[in-house]
Amino acid sequence: MKQDGRQFDSHGRLRHFLTIEGLPRQTILDILDTAESFIAMGEREIKKVPLLRGKTVVNLFFESSTRTRTTFEIAAKRLSADVININPSLSSTAKGETLLDTVRNLEAMHTDLFVVRHASSGAAYLIAGHVSEHVHIINAGDGRHAHPTQAMLDMFTIRRHKGPFENLRVAIVGDVLHSRVARSEIHALTTLGAAEVRVIAPKTLLPTAVEKLGVHPFTDMRAGLADVDVIMMLRLQRERMTGALIPSEQEYFNLYGLTAEKRAYAKPDVIVMHPGPMNRGLEIDSAVADGPNSVILPQVTNGIAVRMAIMALIMGGTPAAEARRAP
Amino acid sequence: MKQDGRQFDSHGRLRHFLTIEGLPRQTILDILDTAESFIAMGEREIKKVPLLRGKTVVNLFFESSTRTRTTFEIAAKRLSADVININPSLSSTAKGETLLDTVRNLEAMHTDLFVVRHASSGAAYLIAGHVSEHVHIINAGDGRHAHPTQAMLDMFTIRRHKGPFENLRVAIVGDVLHSRVARSEIHALTTLGAAEVRVIAPKTLLPTAVEKLGVHPFTDMRAGLADVDVIMMLRLQRERMTGALIPSEQEYFNLYGLTAEKRAYAKPDVIVMHPGPMNRGLEIDSAVADGPNSVILPQVTNGIAVRMAIMALIMGGTPAAEARRAP
Amino acid sequence: MKQDGRQFDSHGRLRHFLTIEGLPRQTILDILDTAESFIAMGEREIKKVPLLRGKTVVNLFFESSTRTRTTFEIAAKRLSADVININPSLSSTAKGETLLDTVRNLEAMHTDLFVVRHASSGAAYLIAGHVSEHVHIINAGDGRHAHPTQAMLDMFTIRRHKGPFENLRVAIVGDVLHSRVARSEIHALTTLGAAEVRVIAPKTLLPTAVEKLGVHPFTDMRAGLADVDVIMMLRLQRERMTGALIPSEQEYFNLYGLTAEKRAYAKPDVIVMHPGPMNRGLEIDSAVADGPNSVILPQVTNGIAVRMAIMALIMGGTPAAEARRAP
Repeated sequence: MKQDGRQFDSHGRLRHFLTIEGLPRQTILDILDTAESFIAMGEREIKKVPLLRGKTVVNLFFESSTRTRTTFEIAAKRLSADVININPSLSSTAKGETLLDTVRNLEAMHTDLFVVRHASSGAAYLIAGHVSEHVHIINAGDGRHAHPTQAMLDMFTIRRHKGPFENLRVAIVGDVLHSRVARSEIHALTTLGAAEVRVIAPKTLLPTAVEKLGVHPFTDMRAGLADVDVIMMLRLQRERMTGALIPSEQEYFNLYGLTAEKRAYAKPDVIVMHPGPMNRGLEIDSAVADGPNSVILPQVTNGIAVRMAIMALIMGGTPAAEARRAP
Repeated sequence: MKQDGRQFDSHGRLRHFLTIEGLPRQTILDILDTAESFIAMGEREIKKVPLLRGKTVVNLFFESSTRTRTTFEIAAKRLSADVININPSLSSTAKGETLLDTVRNLEAMHTDLFVVRHASSGAAYLIAGHVSEHVHIINAGDGRHAHPTQAMLDMFTIRRHKGPFENLRVAIVGDVLHSRVARSEIHALTTLGAAEVRVIAPKTLLPTAVEKLGVHPFTDMRAGLADVDVIMMLRLQRERMTGALIPSEQEYFNLYGLTAEKRAYAKPDVIVMHPGPMNRGLEIDSAVADGPNSVILPQVTNGIAVRMAIMALIMGGTPAAEARRAP
Repeated sequence: MKQDGRQFDSHGRLRHFLTIEGLPRQTILDILDTAESFIAMGEREIKKVPLLRGKTVVNLFFESSTRTRTTFEIAAKRLSADVININPSLSSTAKGETLLDTVRNLEAMHTDLFVVRHASSGAAYLIAGHVSEHVHIINAGDGRHAHPTQAMLDMFTIRRHKGPFENLRVAIVGDVLHSRVARSEIHALTTLGAAEVRVIAPKTLLPTAVEKLGVHPFTDMRAGLADVDVIMMLRLQRERMTGALIPSEQEYFNLYGLTAEKRAYAKPDVIVMHPGPMNRGLEIDSAVADGPNSVILPQVTNGIAVRMAIMALIMGGTPAAEARRAP
């Protein structure tokens, strides 16, 4: 999927948020800066600002995910939007309605923002190509393609805990081949100029020619973790087990599960990340997930602020400075 | 089901909205006029008025329909009501609770409006006969009986695009026999004095003695469409296919699917309507559904305004003039 | 499960609402007094107060119950909170996430109150032991252990209709053995000093050594109902039928179903209660359920006010007097 600038309107303003690929560095930094202003809000007594009052946000989850849906629902409600949750797999599409008919109908109801999750790569992108000017799209995960808001909250978390990306060596560990999270993280890290991005996985779970994305592949986890500042674990879909891609849960954990012993190969102040939900004892040991280097729960907290920032920016065009004053 | 005036309170004010049958022409016009005032609101920056602030609207969908539920949810939220979505087939009724126990319980929670969808004809009517004075009922579709809000939004759309009903020849095409939409549309059109109402369908999908409803039946679609101003397509339930009612999808499309060729028998400025969701290639061809005569998406937009109008009228008794000032 | 004071914070303020067992009499009375102030609100034109504005309430129903979820959703929205409904059995936990990971994630989103329903006894208690200081838990039913908000609304209803507990003889009838409602009611009634609490059931549905809870067991319903002021019926789970615990529906109704004939053994002004949903013709006859002594629907109305009171008290620490002024 080549990026043709569909994310920006004719005035060069961010209109949709579909992918990190091709996004200018400054746009990413604007989002991170805007999110900073929403972080404090989450700790206030009244966690609400009227930025999106009177707007209707539709969570359009063709693929069900309570966790991700909840973060967008909370983010939208804290911006005072009305939120409609729709799980179309259970409704009209079952009645034979096409994806675009569903979208055009919702749009005709004068809704303002669709948060789209879909099992097919490119679904959010397709929708963005067909909606009228006042509608905005956020990609909440499309097939194996992208999960850009997850990558943004990860970047936010890294910047908060480790400072400038130029100095950072980052390892992404696990099923890189099937992971939309990994794909978006790699684009974000390379755009932000991380010193080095490594991917660590068995050969069967690495894309062919992964080096072309600007990363260094490792099949030995200890070698790959050597001296890194950030470890980003990926969730392993248990259904991969049934195929021939990995031998057994136990063997996978032995080779690629993050344990304290393996983590010790990284820098002592390494941060450990995971997009959740975790398979404890499969891709990560509880001692590490709950240990002092883990920033897994801060990722969740940051996810609300980052999603508020993206919603506010694409719908209100709120520049970072303005948003900082807003609350 | 004979209408005994259950829709009006003792002061003659509209209290429930259950059916078009027996509704005075002036009441229908009041709703259409009130809806006009909500149309502009849908295009404003802040799409919200406080008319139903502090009221609780319950979407009580015994029969699931995300699309219809969404339109009522959006309408209620734009009026500032709190909305509770309930799909009782999945809950208490499964535990053996009766329909009326479910309703009495919700009523005891001081809820104000039930939007009821049910597979049985007369369900909303039955409920309206048992609720206390402060509760209002809107019928969002009951069995094969009525779908009055759909008919109202259709009337609104016709009036906006084609002007006074007295001059209009209207054709309703498809499975009239099983369609609550058709039944409500026929009552609305005859009450509003449409010049002629035709129904077009194979004999197996026409009610016996359909002429008694004041319509002209046609089994030949081209003859039926001749010189009409409005074509209202009906959705064909694919499950009818399994019975002996229609021969095959292909043959149904050949005979009763709306194509550009067949549409040409109508007036050149005919409008084409469909309540959705559409079966493209079965009852309607995409070239017509998306063509210049189609008002299918405006129907959806109007549906929000019309439902806001009905809610506001039955709950607040807001007369049209007042509602026009309200935003 | 021994109560270790987990419900109170270090300043002795009620922080969670998990069980009636061990709760001081004064705390129960504070809740009842606060609820009085919310009763009038349910009848006002605008049923909303801003006490929880900007707070996020999560209905975390591991065990599905539309009816109970609805009461909490309405209560929270009338306090102006944002409400998120989550049915985790359908989502993350199905993906292998642990209960505590689910909770920690929601907590990391800066949510404020979890209303927890779970099929396992002690689930809400377990969660309360692991959340950070700003999070509050309400137990909306855990296994066979407790359903404390139901018991509180029952106490509220009894006090409203029958005055001081010291004078009251109360009979709880039905499947006491499996009922979390019965357990919580018994603790509440004994704490409030009811003159006598009786339980009436076949031996197979009575806990062993039930007398230790401070109640008098009866297997003969007419004897047990003699001269009581309050009859609290329990819902009979139909699935018990399949086991050997009760002979047949008809025989159960003959022996323990509440009929007018049996009710006549109680005082003439006895009140009849049921937590719903009712199995009419199984544990209760319709003539009694809908008769003049029934307060079953007032229980539902009171349930909203009592849940508002509990939410307001644990989150805002609103003392009764303040709450009375609040609306």
